[in-house]
Amino acid sequence: MKRHCGTGEPCALKGASTVRRGADGNVLSYEILVVGSVALDTVETPFTKVNETLGGAASYFTTAASLYNQVNLVAIVGSDFPREHLNFWRNRPVNLDGLQIKEGRTFRWTARYHMDMNARDTLDTQLGVYADFHPIIPEKYHSSELLFLANIQPELQMEVLEQVPHANLSVLDTMELWIMTTRPMLTEVIKRVDVLLMSEEEIRQYTNRPSIVAGVRQLLDMGLQYVVVKQGSYGALLFGADGTFFNAPTYPLEEVIDPTGAGDAFAGGFLGYLSQVAPQQDGHYAIDEIKRGVVHGNIIGSYVCEDFSIDRLRTLTIVDVARRYQSLVEYSHFDPSWCFR
Amino acid sequence: MKRHCGTGEPCALKGASTVRRGADGNVLSYEILVVGSVALDTVETPFTKVNETLGGAASYFTTAASLYNQVNLVAIVGSDFPREHLNFWRNRPVNLDGLQIKEGRTFRWTARYHMDMNARDTLDTQLGVYADFHPIIPEKYHSSELLFLANIQPELQMEVLEQVPHANLSVLDTMELWIMTTRPMLTEVIKRVDVLLMSEEEIRQYTNRPSIVAGVRQLLDMGLQYVVVKQGSYGALLFGADGTFFNAPTYPLEEVIDPTGAGDAFAGGFLGYLSQVAPQQDGHYAIDEIKRGVVHGNIIGSYVCEDFSIDRLRTLTIVDVARRYQSLVEYSHFDPSWCFR
Repeated sequence: MKRHCGTGEPCALKGASTVRRGADGNVLSYEILVVGSVALDTVETPFTKVNETLGGAASYFTTAASLYNQVNLVAIVGSDFPREHLNFWRNRPVNLDGLQIKEGRTFRWTARYHMDMNARDTLDTQLGVYADFHPIIPEKYHSSELLFLANIQPELQMEVLEQVPHANLSVLDTMELWIMTTRPMLTEVIKRVDVLLMSEEEIRQYTNRPSIVAGVRQLLDMGLQYVVVKQGSYGALLFGADGTFFNAPTYPLEEVIDPTGAGDAFAGGFLGYLSQVAPQQDGHYAIDEIKRGVVHGNIIGSYVCEDFSIDRLRTLTIVDVARRYQSLVEYSHFDPSWCFR
Repeated sequence: MKRHCGTGEPCALKGASTVRRGADGNVLSYEILVVGSVALDTVETPFTKVNETLGGAASYFTTAASLYNQVNLVAIVGSDFPREHLNFWRNRPVNLDGLQIKEGRTFRWTARYHMDMNARDTLDTQLGVYADFHPIIPEKYHSSELLFLANIQPELQMEVLEQVPHANLSVLDTMELWIMTTRPMLTEVIKRVDVLLMSEEEIRQYTNRPSIVAGVRQLLDMGLQYVVVKQGSYGALLFGADGTFFNAPTYPLEEVIDPTGAGDAFAGGFLGYLSQVAPQQDGHYAIDEIKRGVVHGNIIGSYVCEDFSIDRLRTLTIVDVARRYQSLVEYSHFDPSWCFR
């Protein structure tokens, strides 16, 4: 949230190490800080099964966003975490200084998808080293301007916000479990961030309103700048406190191999895109940039479904993204003028 | 389907009474023929209930499409059908010469919606005079160029196609019941029309494929020009045999009063829009017009949900439609150019 630091100047103008500036001193781009889970996933679909692949919300986000810009990852893994995954990230613009490696077992998650791939059952969750995790944000990231709070306990998300109080744009993800079990703390976190990502079902659960539009309005009234409604294969809706509404088109996939992490990859595309765009003088992003960010989110989210784990992102290039961007323009734009005879 | 009548000239160029031509002889617009159900609906939502209001697929379609152009209705009602509904249509560009009024009871349908308004249970269906209905198309409509086969038994839809063999654009709606019980005849009907409207669930049921994209391809391979995937509150997808894909945006309704008939109203907006557009020289509609038709379908479908029965359409004007069209442009378009720095 754009806050001021007593000088009357936005904090973004302070000399933070996560900011790239032009010769004129203006902000060119921001690095991204993400805090969330890194896991080993076992996933079964109606067609196949993979064992202990790289998973966790922060893994998807980091891999996706690092296609665009530098990502600083804060998470925890156990001593059993395969070194190949660390090496994979080291070969991308990912900084792992905030990744704790602790004696014990890495977080493990096992799930099975239904036939239509839109629903799944979690079969097993083993927290491992996450059981007593507390995020420790390296000091050099305390002035981060772009922050993604991936889906972890709201208490931990609040601990992050206390260490990174002046982010220019903070984006929050959550899940049904926290809505049901830790609603008061989740509410406090929502009040302190700029953008909330939620599925329709989560919005209904949190607001107890059958209408998504009414539920979103209730959320915006809590002080959010934007609510992004994640609709899975239907794309995403963007609602702004300023009255903005944007229906980002879906990319029609011939085959969904594994939708795990699509929402986190969406967030990675969204913040990744914004990370390489200059904000306006007031520190906010122009609405056209926010919309483009949502389109990038949809693109990266669609790519991630084309393979298990983060595998499709390993070879994905920005040229692939640009190609799908043009497809989405073609798929969603129509003649803006229409006159009745 | 654009067929030729032995002269080498498209049949559309014959002198049919349902065609309006310019001074140069070129087609300006077509009247629309619709065959389907007219009913009395009793609908219960979580919030309220209405008894024996005007319902039935053909009623929604006729009322919607008559906002744009002349609609010729073929259906049957019983002797108990309220005259006020007939008078309502007589005050619009609706021709009722094909509406049979038969001694007996009008078709009645009773349903209850669930809390999220996306699912409903049919509580009662009384066919009444529909039990032994056979569509008799007045001769003056035999050369109709725009045809909507609303959701009735495929056998009856086939009887219509045999009486109206040369429609320029024929649009078919159906339902789960016919997919389950009369699949072979439904298949024959699909092979003879140009555009098929189906929900995602119906596509999965008919094609037995989990992927909508793959299911649609199977349908297009049957000879259809277009498949429109109805997605309820998520809008609609257009797939063309020529590879066209278009994701029409949804209009975000604050409150859904009653979604009954939204699919039929969609069809009314789609064909209504096309009915006042000139086709190309080859008799086909330009793809930009088809896309705009889908947008109009979404618009009319969204309006219909704002009240029970066809009530919102009673006062709806083309100016209202144009206003929502502009909103949808704003809600769905984004900067088509994007360059990575």
